[in-house]
Amino acid sequence: MPLSREQQAEIAVARGQTRETRRATVPALEEILYEAIPVLDHGFIRVVDYMGDDAAIVQAARVSYGRGTKRVSEDQGLINYLMRHRHTTPFEMCEIKYHVKLPIFVARQWIRHRTANVNEYSARYSILDNEFYVPAPDKLATQATTNRQGRGAVIAGAAAQRVLDLLRGDAERAYAGYAELLNEDAAGRPRDPSWPGLARELARMNLSLNFYTQWYWKIDLYNLLHFLALRADPHAQYEIRAYAEAMLDTVKRWVPLAYEAFLEYRMNAATISATGLQVIRRMLAGERVDQPSSGLSAREWRELMALINADAAS
Amino acid sequence: MPLSREQQAEIAVARGQTRETRRATVPALEEILYEAIPVLDHGFIRVVDYMGDDAAIVQAARVSYGRGTKRVSEDQGLINYLMRHRHTTPFEMCEIKYHVKLPIFVARQWIRHRTANVNEYSARYSILDNEFYVPAPDKLATQATTNRQGRGAVIAGAAAQRVLDLLRGDAERAYAGYAELLNEDAAGRPRDPSWPGLARELARMNLSLNFYTQWYWKIDLYNLLHFLALRADPHAQYEIRAYAEAMLDTVKRWVPLAYEAFLEYRMNAATISATGLQVIRRMLAGERVDQPSSGLSAREWRELMALINADAAS
Amino acid sequence: MPLSREQQAEIAVARGQTRETRRATVPALEEILYEAIPVLDHGFIRVVDYMGDDAAIVQAARVSYGRGTKRVSEDQGLINYLMRHRHTTPFEMCEIKYHVKLPIFVARQWIRHRTANVNEYSARYSILDNEFYVPAPDKLATQATTNRQGRGAVIAGAAAQRVLDLLRGDAERAYAGYAELLNEDAAGRPRDPSWPGLARELARMNLSLNFYTQWYWKIDLYNLLHFLALRADPHAQYEIRAYAEAMLDTVKRWVPLAYEAFLEYRMNAATISATGLQVIRRMLAGERVDQPSSGLSAREWRELMALINADAAS
Amino acid sequence: MPLSREQQAEIAVARGQTRETRRATVPALEEILYEAIPVLDHGFIRVVDYMGDDAAIVQAARVSYGRGTKRVSEDQGLINYLMRHRHTTPFEMCEIKYHVKLPIFVARQWIRHRTANVNEYSARYSILDNEFYVPAPDKLATQATTNRQGRGAVIAGAAAQRVLDLLRGDAERAYAGYAELLNEDAAGRPRDPSWPGLARELARMNLSLNFYTQWYWKIDLYNLLHFLALRADPHAQYEIRAYAEAMLDTVKRWVPLAYEAFLEYRMNAATISATGLQVIRRMLAGERVDQPSSGLSAREWRELMALINADAAS
Repeated sequence: MPLSREQQAEIAVARGQTRETRRATVPALEEILYEAIPVLDHGFIRVVDYMGDDAAIVQAARVSYGRGTKRVSEDQGLINYLMRHRHTTPFEMCEIKYHVKLPIFVARQWIRHRTANVNEYSARYSILDNEFYVPAPDKLATQATTNRQGRGAVIAGAAAQRVLDLLRGDAERAYAGYAELLNEDAAGRPRDPSWPGLARELARMNLSLNFYTQWYWKIDLYNLLHFLALRADPHAQYEIRAYAEAMLDTVKRWVPLAYEAFLEYRMNAATISATGLQVIRRMLAGERVDQPSSGLSAREWRELMALINADAAS
Repeated sequence: MPLSREQQAEIAVARGQTRETRRATVPALEEILYEAIPVLDHGFIRVVDYMGDDAAIVQAARVSYGRGTKRVSEDQGLINYLMRHRHTTPFEMCEIKYHVKLPIFVARQWIRHRTANVNEYSARYSILDNEFYVPAPDKLATQATTNRQGRGAVIAGAAAQRVLDLLRGDAERAYAGYAELLNEDAAGRPRDPSWPGLARELARMNLSLNFYTQWYWKIDLYNLLHFLALRADPHAQYEIRAYAEAMLDTVKRWVPLAYEAFLEYRMNAATISATGLQVIRRMLAGERVDQPSSGLSAREWRELMALINADAAS
Repeated sequence: MPLSREQQAEIAVARGQTRETRRATVPALEEILYEAIPVLDHGFIRVVDYMGDDAAIVQAARVSYGRGTKRVSEDQGLINYLMRHRHTTPFEMCEIKYHVKLPIFVARQWIRHRTANVNEYSARYSILDNEFYVPAPDKLATQATTNRQGRGAVIAGAAAQRVLDLLRGDAERAYAGYAELLNEDAAGRPRDPSWPGLARELARMNLSLNFYTQWYWKIDLYNLLHFLALRADPHAQYEIRAYAEAMLDTVKRWVPLAYEAFLEYRMNAATISATGLQVIRRMLAGERVDQPSSGLSAREWRELMALINADAAS
Repeated sequence: MPLSREQQAEIAVARGQTRETRRATVPALEEILYEAIPVLDHGFIRVVDYMGDDAAIVQAARVSYGRGTKRVSEDQGLINYLMRHRHTTPFEMCEIKYHVKLPIFVARQWIRHRTANVNEYSARYSILDNEFYVPAPDKLATQATTNRQGRGAVIAGAAAQRVLDLLRGDAERAYAGYAELLNEDAAGRPRDPSWPGLARELARMNLSLNFYTQWYWKIDLYNLLHFLALRADPHAQYEIRAYAEAMLDTVKRWVPLAYEAFLEYRMNAATISATGLQVIRRMLAGERVDQPSSGLSAREWRELMALINADAAS
């Protein structure tokens, strides 16, 4: 259970209260506000605040580009135009705040995105819980052989059990060491009165990277979409992708027009190189092109063929 | 009148509507939401959206530092502690969006703060109105003689009239030239059908820096306070300070505890150099210190004496 | 002449000195170091410092991705890979500093890129020279009719003369007003002793947006390329594009491998939407597709056809 | 030994070469360029590139504030002025790049500074070495009792041995688990051919936070000084402070005038609150002030007294 009883009670209270506001509201997002959406074995994301909606994007664009029309169909057209032409600033006018619980190795990838505000649980001040990530059996995979980054075949059977036992065993032991170093019981008294216990800021180094941490993470919509484009991508590590996909669902509730534009012009779009465009032009003109005559490397050729192959369209 | 009739109508509509939300709200800020607060002769600021309140700062700090208490007196104490020790990230958890109308030369200073989101009215797409800033008579000043940056005595009488006439005359002429270059009437038809008119992106270069522009400007509370510390400071140019002071009033409504902490630990605080601290220690120990024996330059000495002089306390 | 005699002398001195360093150097860039490259009628760019080279990009990537090979052909392959997959951080390891002289309306567009360091000439402290931009006759253009942003046909003959006379006349008058307000001669004494003169920070507002300012501008290679992709684009206003193109030449000297990758995978590449990709797949499979059956708007269809038309390849 | 034999050889080659440049150089920094400066038990910092020097700060300030003088004594005065008045942009004109090897828990604190460029060794692609941090015996400390963040008394004797044994034992076991999961020998072949081995991106989660990682870290001087002000502070955790102090020495070599100004106006300066300033004024006017009459909290009073006590001056 990813949430403490106390957290669950706080969420129930927060969800039970409504107030009046003159600000724009988004009922579909209000519906899930504060709720924990489970991710991985002990993690979650929760939307805890937001500012703006699709109309705020349109309004910001109208400030820049002058007066426009206001019908919904035209809002979608304008948002599509902005996304297509990478006019980024109107999307920066919306802001969202998440509460996220995630394994430390995922947090390390995540934090590389520098354009967000973060408040992380501090193990200098506080004691981490005994919660660590162990992959579900279908998520255990070998190293990819064609790609130095990434996963190959799923590991099954006894080998899988061996992996899980090892991960669990080492994490349990790491936590036991951490607890022994801290030497504090739940009431903050020494568990073993014969020695003093180590400072929290030092003891934490005994924990492994699959332990869970949590943070508040606040970001504008433009930078959130950039994050999701990278982290919901099939090349992203599964564990961070799981978070990105849960967040995509919240974006769909929050700014449905921007979400559609994002799928069409970013997530499911592709950038084709100068030489790749030449290949397409030659093919459409009826020329037979193969890799050696394409000017593309073998790898780029494979990727381009995968992209434009009619079968991929089905 | 800084607002167009159309803008006034939009504001009235926006202010007339309320919706239900589960988010934190701040009634004192809701009260003035969307309202234009006049600044200078044709400018304004308007709060058009916000996220978070004092409690959001406390909540973010509690994530980092672990569980705290929740009584208001202790919230103030915690916020003071955060401000005093420059723990900046909890203040980043609040966000505010302004609509601002301001002279271009003020916009040029303002935009140097890079940590905000901006959508500015574009004179590539749209036509600027014939509105320019002329200082109020009591704001006309000579160049400071002691300080290469800044103002000296107020200019009065005939000299003041000469300045105002010159500024107004040149701005009127600049706008007349702009309008002639654009060659468009209100309906977008050529005013003078005998020639084509110049592209907007070129014609705008004829306007002077006191013409008004406008933008949406969104920023987190930490960076807003940093902006205000610099721009509400007596050393800031009066024209941008006028905006900063109007914004300070909105901060006071929005996050009163953070506002108090900001006054105590930033706006009305002072940073004293290593040598300046030595001077204070020596004085408190009963030593007579003068500038030559202080180790401070004449200017630093003057500044320190102004700061610690008992008379300044009255 | 964009450079003062004093600046020319400083440049000659700087270019005449060489020192020994253990850092990476780029001879092709050293060759033009400090030299002013003219842009527009009075502007310039100068490279005044740089850090890193193509090898620094490769080295940073090797830190992230582990050991690679070191032959030049493979450096190009690795840099292409990084550019193609938008691995941005290795390109951030190179840094360059420019000194730029540019019209204020160009500076206003430029400064919207927030990820650079800037020191601009301050008209609060100093007096601006009487130098303003007037477009070359072949750069005068009407407002585009198909596009609210942009230029249409070139204005020629008497109409052009009328534009140029108006721009020049108004700028001259603006500067005369500025000088009168300042009331300082070259030695800093009042030109007209009968009145005091206005503070510089106020007088500057009388200047128009085509006056020249200057700044030092420092940026990492990744963000520079992002800036250039937007500002060397045909949709950018001609005046900022002129600067971007001059800078592109300096990038070619500095990091030739990154420059080639940038042309292939960014400048001359194209992003095709999900629906656009479907259209290409259907066409390559032999289907006849027209705009109504394409799922694209008329405008998107036109853009896609322009992109993939075989004639565009010649 | 923190450096591999191969790294040592690369450093020797890099240090053995010099080239000619027209750029500013700093001989005192060139002297140690590329050299590894040891930090903690297996870590280091190395300066691997730099741009600019004290003169570049002065030059940038002169662009902003107009022409100044050029004698060294006046350069120090100008740099002091800039530091004192928090004119930050001239300091942004210098840039430095470090190669750092550091424990993961230190990297997690470090990365919170968002205004730098980072390329970190990736354990998705590569295998981490069996190197982990164990504190020196005099750095083992109990949890502070007066302060929830921080350390108390040093742990000695048998208790210290128990901590060290536990940390070492758990880290060794974590690495053994990691190696077993990877199932690769030095040549990349399976150590145990009977099973496939786990993907690197998953196996890494078994390592604990005291394992070493490394990165290239590039930052401008202003942001570096801000980082050092926070991380060389006595309140910072010892382990990151050790890095900050080693970097301070490199700053002293690189920009000695900025370094002196930094000590005087930042590191060894203090910010005193509005109420604290009142207390000082009252004391200097001869009034006897105690905590209850001061308006300060007990903690603020203690801190102020520690700061201004004459004994602290000795």
